[in-house]
Amino acid sequence: MDFTSEQRLDDGVLEREFTLGEIPGTLWTPQSAAPTPLILIAHNNGLPRREARLVARARHCAAQGYAVASIDAAGCGERPRSAADEQARAELRRAMRAGEPVDDIFESFIAPLVENAVPEWRTALDALLALPGIAGPVGYSGWTAVGIGLAAAEPRIAAAGLFAGGYVPRAQREEARQITIPLLFLLQWDDEGNPRQRALDLFDAFGSKEKTLHANLGGHVGTPWFEVEDGSRFYDRHLK
Amino acid sequence: MDFTSEQRLDDGVLEREFTLGEIPGTLWTPQSAAPTPLILIAHNNGLPRREARLVARARHCAAQGYAVASIDAAGCGERPRSAADEQARAELRRAMRAGEPVDDIFESFIAPLVENAVPEWRTALDALLALPGIAGPVGYSGWTAVGIGLAAAEPRIAAAGLFAGGYVPRAQREEARQITIPLLFLLQWDDEGNPRQRALDLFDAFGSKEKTLHANLGGHVGTPWFEVEDGSRFYDRHLK
Repeated sequence: MDFTSEQRLDDGVLEREFTLGEIPGTLWTPQSAAPTPLILIAHNNGLPRREARLVARARHCAAQGYAVASIDAAGCGERPRSAADEQARAELRRAMRAGEPVDDIFESFIAPLVENAVPEWRTALDALLALPGIAGPVGYSGWTAVGIGLAAAEPRIAAAGLFAGGYVPRAQREEARQITIPLLFLLQWDDEGNPRQRALDLFDAFGSKEKTLHANLGGHVGTPWFEVEDGSRFYDRHLK
Repeated sequence: MDFTSEQRLDDGVLEREFTLGEIPGTLWTPQSAAPTPLILIAHNNGLPRREARLVARARHCAAQGYAVASIDAAGCGERPRSAADEQARAELRRAMRAGEPVDDIFESFIAPLVENAVPEWRTALDALLALPGIAGPVGYSGWTAVGIGLAAAEPRIAAAGLFAGGYVPRAQREEARQITIPLLFLLQWDDEGNPRQRALDLFDAFGSKEKTLHANLGGHVGTPWFEVEDGSRFYDRHLK
């Protein structure tokens, strides 16, 4: 892992950009010198790790005493995209806006993206836990499909906060039953891209004995800020 | 309002029993001398206001800086019950345990109980807000049907935390659309006495723009303690 830049933010959080082979990432660490638990935070469907809402969540968590890391997995964020990928993304956005079912695009385009992302997140996890001051346990926050894939493959993930989850590739919908770690499942009641009943069915499917659903009125990007604080307390219960 | 006993608890909260005409109640107030907002807290279906889970919630809220009050409304808690009421309660419990629909019992027995409870809660609210040190604004916590009836009738209710809500009398299901105050709607995913889909439909029906659903795995009495803390933060956002 090579650190390429660093910046001390107003709240004392240290923000460092890194590369790990082809994988670019960002690590936020709190001012405290004590060993910290780690939270991996991922955006849905390949938004960049530097997107403002992700950065705000990451900084809040870091200020609460967590090391927080995000990567752009293959095909996501700043990573190169093929013309075919761009076309698939455009078609997905068009179909979602039109309210058409997107299962086929999810299976042909999102499913391989998730399959390829999981091993990269595990590679990042190995490297992050080898850094001084980052001790685990490890939580996950964000993109539901990657969270399911990662938690199913990776026993070091001790708790997960998952967002949206209306459309999730079939492989991860099936893996949900094997997930037994504590979950906070967050959805927007009127999420234009995530059918509500499917998200509720997915929440129901998880094998976890400790699982909590939070839903708020409004569309996909309307999650109120207090859910970030609720998320932080969820990790406090399970990672500290 | 006549105070009949008082007790200073370990956490500094003052617990006072009172009577208001025929209505018996309990008032918990924090140690602070500053004027406090008020939370009215009610159990579902007439459990007594002295029941341990209600008292624990009330004391926690009071320790966070709220005046908290509960009453036994007509037919609830310690108030006299007719033989017919006892029989209706027994039949309701039997039908719920057997998983039979209970709509008819709700309309014939619970609906009048709710209709009679609402004016008694309003009487208590008048008396409580006349006490020194209790300033409002006013929140409500607990029994969904009474909360809907009270919020529909009473503009002084500024925010409500509602629990369960699978079975609710028709009148309150219809009034839900008129409710526009911020809501925290809490349900147990496997509540044996509250069909999940009906509770979700009720959450959907509320007219409030700010409404949050919290659901946890488990049966009716299995709500995790952290929901009491989440509830307290909900009131902090809207009453302080």
